[in-house]
Amino acid sequence: MIHPSAKIGKNVVLGQSVVIEENAEIGDDAEIGHHVIIKKDTKIGNRVKVGDLSVLGKTTSKNKKMARKPGAALTPLVIEDDVRIGCNTVLYRNLLLKQGAFVGDLSSIREKVTVGEDSIIGRNVIVETNTVIGSRVTVQTGCYVTADMIIEDDVFLGPCVSTSNDKYMGEGNYPYQGPIIKKGAKVGNNATLLPGITIGEKAIIGAGATVTKDVEAGKTAVGNPARVIK
Amino acid sequence: MIHPSAKIGKNVVLGQSVVIEENAEIGDDAEIGHHVIIKKDTKIGNRVKVGDLSVLGKTTSKNKKMARKPGAALTPLVIEDDVRIGCNTVLYRNLLLKQGAFVGDLSSIREKVTVGEDSIIGRNVIVETNTVIGSRVTVQTGCYVTADMIIEDDVFLGPCVSTSNDKYMGEGNYPYQGPIIKKGAKVGNNATLLPGITIGEKAIIGAGATVTKDVEAGKTAVGNPARVIK
Amino acid sequence: MIHPSAKIGKNVVLGQSVVIEENAEIGDDAEIGHHVIIKKDTKIGNRVKVGDLSVLGKTTSKNKKMARKPGAALTPLVIEDDVRIGCNTVLYRNLLLKQGAFVGDLSSIREKVTVGEDSIIGRNVIVETNTVIGSRVTVQTGCYVTADMIIEDDVFLGPCVSTSNDKYMGEGNYPYQGPIIKKGAKVGNNATLLPGITIGEKAIIGAGATVTKDVEAGKTAVGNPARVIK
Repeated sequence: MIHPSAKIGKNVVLGQSVVIEENAEIGDDAEIGHHVIIKKDTKIGNRVKVGDLSVLGKTTSKNKKMARKPGAALTPLVIEDDVRIGCNTVLYRNLLLKQGAFVGDLSSIREKVTVGEDSIIGRNVIVETNTVIGSRVTVQTGCYVTADMIIEDDVFLGPCVSTSNDKYMGEGNYPYQGPIIKKGAKVGNNATLLPGITIGEKAIIGAGATVTKDVEAGKTAVGNPARVIK
Repeated sequence: MIHPSAKIGKNVVLGQSVVIEENAEIGDDAEIGHHVIIKKDTKIGNRVKVGDLSVLGKTTSKNKKMARKPGAALTPLVIEDDVRIGCNTVLYRNLLLKQGAFVGDLSSIREKVTVGEDSIIGRNVIVETNTVIGSRVTVQTGCYVTADMIIEDDVFLGPCVSTSNDKYMGEGNYPYQGPIIKKGAKVGNNATLLPGITIGEKAIIGAGATVTKDVEAGKTAVGNPARVIK
Repeated sequence: MIHPSAKIGKNVVLGQSVVIEENAEIGDDAEIGHHVIIKKDTKIGNRVKVGDLSVLGKTTSKNKKMARKPGAALTPLVIEDDVRIGCNTVLYRNLLLKQGAFVGDLSSIREKVTVGEDSIIGRNVIVETNTVIGSRVTVQTGCYVTADMIIEDDVFLGPCVSTSNDKYMGEGNYPYQGPIIKKGAKVGNNATLLPGITIGEKAIIGAGATVTKDVEAGKTAVGNPARVIK
């Protein structure tokens, strides 16, 4: 089903049973997989490839227990040129995927997020709202990127890195703040990062570490709790 | 494809290519996304919203290596009023989602499970069979809730909490028992909980902790292995 | 949509809106769920069951930041007799699932991988490229199996085990090597395994452990960093 208000570029390949809702736009030479759902207003650039069974441009949903208030009307999902998106992904409105970014299968990214140029969001990665991811960042498979987090350029997150933004776990008395990961830092697989900590430029966090306080630029920290070793 | 035996309420919005199998029921004012599959006998309440590409009412599958015997005929999946379900979820038969519960994108919940009123099951959460989740519980993104586990009311599980129920890992000589998490307890992100332990009422488990034995009510435990700090 | 070159066996059950591309083959008595996508050349054996909304035979995708060079033309996805595949899975080309293997919902397995006879790949498991998984292996829910890894016969990985293969995290100066897990070893839930380590035959790794070096056959190691305790 293609809504008559949708705009489809030249040489676009559309799979079977694709749904394209009102005011969606698809650039030239794009390839859209089977059973993909492109929700209203979504903007897709040139040469973008979207895997099968993905949802593009979801609106935020909530139940009455959730803390965050619904924001102003959300801007559309914008996918710039040459982006690659996997299968079975769920991407929200008010999300910007910059040129050449990659999003793996079974991943989901919420609203108020930017993913920088050529960055890689691996498979099975979940990114929460209100987070900025720089350029040439690698977020490997299975990472959890919390809300209110900052990941600067050239950061490397190994597989299954876990982050959080709520120091008092649901008490509602803490200004949410995710970790801040400075330019070029590297974090090993399955590391645990606590709310509000800063990982300095080019710092290295060992696999399996639990980081409870700031780590200075260029330092290496390992263990639980993580301690600087050099 | 809507089976002629299915019952659809008033003012129901159905997406494109929805499959509704025999004896399924959908309440008034429900919204069902595109490409959703509602399997036979599933009962969906009033004002329920279901995201795109979800499977509701799956029957258990197994191969010959799996330990658990197939049970008696499974009751249907029952989704009470005002429940919200994300995109790309997989929900099994013999599952009860109570009024106002929320299930995030890319999550899956197996059979013989109850999720209490207004509880939140985040995105990318997997819940195994034979587990009870109370009311107003928060299970954040990426948690793994094992089988044979009890989560009481008002518990908070931070992101990526991992649990297990099989002390001897596949030897088959141990009565499976997941963790028991008492009312109001809070567990930090990426914590590891061993089989059969009890986390007491309002106890707090630090992020990244590995909990190998019981933690008393009101206590805080951190580290690997977790030790009480106050 | 079924391509005219596809071959469908006897007594095959096909769900709604199934897409079957060119040269795909489906054996006798197979059951294919709704909205499944069977990509070109995929070979499916007899009595195989495939859950709804799965993608079978995906071709590798990449962006310009990714390290691995595109290989030679990939062989097809081959699924042997009696395999069970869940819902919302993403399985790549050049993957062999041997007789009786099980793949859970929301899992994904990449190219150049073999899964042995009767092995279980749980729900929400991601397996990277160039990895060998033996027979009768259990990979429980939420595990991350990195690239260039060897898992021998009868290994048991508990839930959420995390592995890695890149010692220097993206520097590009290290021959990628994932962990080697010898026959009959068991790894507890949410353990972290570093690149290139060997877990010996029938060794046991505790839940939440971070394994930074080899563990000898028959030994048990726990903690962060993991130390042998008996």
